[in-house]
Amino acid sequence: MVFTGSGGQGVITAAIVLAEAAAIFENLSATQTQSYGPEARGGATRADVIISDGEIRFPKVVQANVMVCLTQQAYNKYSSFVRPGGLLLSDSKYVRTESKVDARQVQLPMYQCVMDQIGRPIVYNICVLGVVIGLTGVIGPESIMKVLEKRIPPDLLAMNRKALDLGLCLVSGLAAAAPEGCEGIEE
Amino acid sequence: MVFTGSGGQGVITAAIVLAEAAAIFENLSATQTQSYGPEARGGATRADVIISDGEIRFPKVVQANVMVCLTQQAYNKYSSFVRPGGLLLSDSKYVRTESKVDARQVQLPMYQCVMDQIGRPIVYNICVLGVVIGLTGVIGPESIMKVLEKRIPPDLLAMNRKALDLGLCLVSGLAAAAPEGCEGIEE
Repeated sequence: MVFTGSGGQGVITAAIVLAEAAAIFENLSATQTQSYGPEARGGATRADVIISDGEIRFPKVVQANVMVCLTQQAYNKYSSFVRPGGLLLSDSKYVRTESKVDARQVQLPMYQCVMDQIGRPIVYNICVLGVVIGLTGVIGPESIMKVLEKRIPPDLLAMNRKALDLGLCLVSGLAAAAPEGCEGIEE
Repeated sequence: MVFTGSGGQGVITAAIVLAEAAAIFENLSATQTQSYGPEARGGATRADVIISDGEIRFPKVVQANVMVCLTQQAYNKYSSFVRPGGLLLSDSKYVRTESKVDARQVQLPMYQCVMDQIGRPIVYNICVLGVVIGLTGVIGPESIMKVLEKRIPPDLLAMNRKALDLGLCLVSGLAAAAPEGCEGIEE
């Protein structure tokens, strides 16, 4: 998986939390790497996460199964980087998607919903994580929370849990409605 | 539109607020009626709303363009009451849908998301209203809020606004993802 956006959106933290949760609490192998040097100077922050139930031989993502783009700049730079048929997740507030991408594109108003429901942009990246684990099922939310319990003050846990649940809510609505709701929804 | 569920879910209030918002703040005609007598004794509360930009000649819904079912009992009793091609909205917590219904079925975890994000079931019906106006565009959220401002204490407005926005969030995610996200989401 590759998380891209602007640094202030917490994409690197999201990647670290996800990798830690997978490696420590789900008995999976995980690597997490940031890009520095030339490719980082494009203005889009990029953080890679590889999660596997086997051995990981190379820590960088070559083709992303899941590409998360939280800014237009990141989308323009990295959307083509998703593998054919992979998942390309973007935020309706920041990204205008293009249809030519050969991937399953999911765009959700993650930022808007976080601001509506919680009012604190600081947990935006946790909502994004909720969406990612909700869409992929790669790890469970409790593992994310266990990592957060080690990393953040107790009085911030509830807000982070809400952000994680909000991401899961957005996805569960999506998933529940998809089988029958889709063409209708396009009206 | 027909709202069905159990009384405690606030389906009648939701119908009244919707009708008032349409009639008072959107220059539309609206009727709102409850069912009493035999059909009300089935255990499922039913509230009808008709909204029109023209004259309304009969105040009861004969075939629902939008049928909202918030309990299994209501779904079993009323789901066939939606017009062919109409919208059948249900809550994942309370309803197991059947595929034989000739309607666009949308099921969302409205109750779960309200509890996750707000923690107060009292605004569940306002979240449902947010979903209904989000899916149909029949009226705008500001009109709903104007009605609520007249009906409830100021200190409860923010929570109701959150519930309304949460409903809109669930729908906007749905809508944004539907064009390209659907078959993927079913995986």
